[in-house]
Amino acid sequence: MQTGKVHKKIKVSQRPSEQIKGSGERISMDVGNYLAPVPCCMLSSGRPGEQPNIMTVAWCGTVNSKPPMISVSITKSRYSHDLVSETGEFVLNIPDIALAKACDYCGVKSFREVDKFAELGLTPEAMEGLEVARAIKEAPLSLGCKLRHTLELGSHDLFIAEIVSLRVRADLLDKNGALHLEKAGLLAYVHGQYFALGKWLGFFGWSIAAPAVLARRQRESRRVYKKS
Amino acid sequence: MQTGKVHKKIKVSQRPSEQIKGSGERISMDVGNYLAPVPCCMLSSGRPGEQPNIMTVAWCGTVNSKPPMISVSITKSRYSHDLVSETGEFVLNIPDIALAKACDYCGVKSFREVDKFAELGLTPEAMEGLEVARAIKEAPLSLGCKLRHTLELGSHDLFIAEIVSLRVRADLLDKNGALHLEKAGLLAYVHGQYFALGKWLGFFGWSIAAPAVLARRQRESRRVYKKS
Repeated sequence: MQTGKVHKKIKVSQRPSEQIKGSGERISMDVGNYLAPVPCCMLSSGRPGEQPNIMTVAWCGTVNSKPPMISVSITKSRYSHDLVSETGEFVLNIPDIALAKACDYCGVKSFREVDKFAELGLTPEAMEGLEVARAIKEAPLSLGCKLRHTLELGSHDLFIAEIVSLRVRADLLDKNGALHLEKAGLLAYVHGQYFALGKWLGFFGWSIAAPAVLARRQRESRRVYKKS
Repeated sequence: MQTGKVHKKIKVSQRPSEQIKGSGERISMDVGNYLAPVPCCMLSSGRPGEQPNIMTVAWCGTVNSKPPMISVSITKSRYSHDLVSETGEFVLNIPDIALAKACDYCGVKSFREVDKFAELGLTPEAMEGLEVARAIKEAPLSLGCKLRHTLELGSHDLFIAEIVSLRVRADLLDKNGALHLEKAGLLAYVHGQYFALGKWLGFFGWSIAAPAVLARRQRESRRVYKKS
């Protein structure tokens, strides 16, 4: 849980530019996949009559709000590529720190070697709107997804899917029903290294918030994170 | 910088499943865009004869490795949507914590109101392979991108682009030329809240590494993070 580190006060008097330190010298380097941090999710999918499978995906993201859609890139050689292509459905499970090692394990082991649900002691859970894909019950949040588009980009196929159902840990909702997933203790992935989330830096719009609004929102945020 | 918090030792004797605590009760909730954490990038683009612009994008990700490609989702109403569509190029700049407030500012202010490079004291920098789009020199890493595909998904258009050039802060490369972007102090975005990265949890493959390999890699990782 990163919740012990979120109470540092932001210096609100600064203009945005006043926080920017002089950067070091920059140079060119060879192109590669260096966008970071990226999410670290556990994609579960399956085929009727087989045990469900899990693979780890870091090349995923939100792509549309109405309707809510996500994308996931998978190479053709992965077993999950066939499962998603054939069934048109999957679950994107967002792990917490307690699942970090399981998450890594699902990224290096194949369905062809091991039954990952069984090996990891995880529980498949049915999701509304999906016929065969099962969620991971131990994850704080699971997004049930139906495939809408597939783009062949070269090494990877990009699957674009609509989120049709959600399952969430009840204790991550506040009394108004708002989700506080950040309280779950999430993971981020940076070029082969896993990190927990750390210090809370601010909310969307804090750079231009009026002082009274900023003070109120900071108090609220502190209260939210303290509760967990 | 999250570098002070990366030295905690991983319990390597555990099987993956032994780290998984019992999860709380789960319930269904209405669908929405809850995938997290997502990256927090500053997209710079421009049109000949105008000052360059910056917008913040969290709905972006890596989508292909050969060739290296990223995707970015932008609503049609954003000024940057037109700049990217018209010119077919943009730069995805990855900010560090020193740029957090500027990053937020570029997400709430429009080109139509303010010259963001000027207001924030940022420096446009030319990139190899791009004609009009300019990088943000103060960012630790910038990806020069050429548009390859556009998909209209509903509320957002998904731009898929090839990374054609990179500019990076020289001090983030080690003596072998390997990039350690995690040393820059990166940001992640969770449902309207910005977080720094925190504790280092492990490297890709740590869940199945042999004890000797694991010990060596952990020593190396600790050395890398200590240096910054």
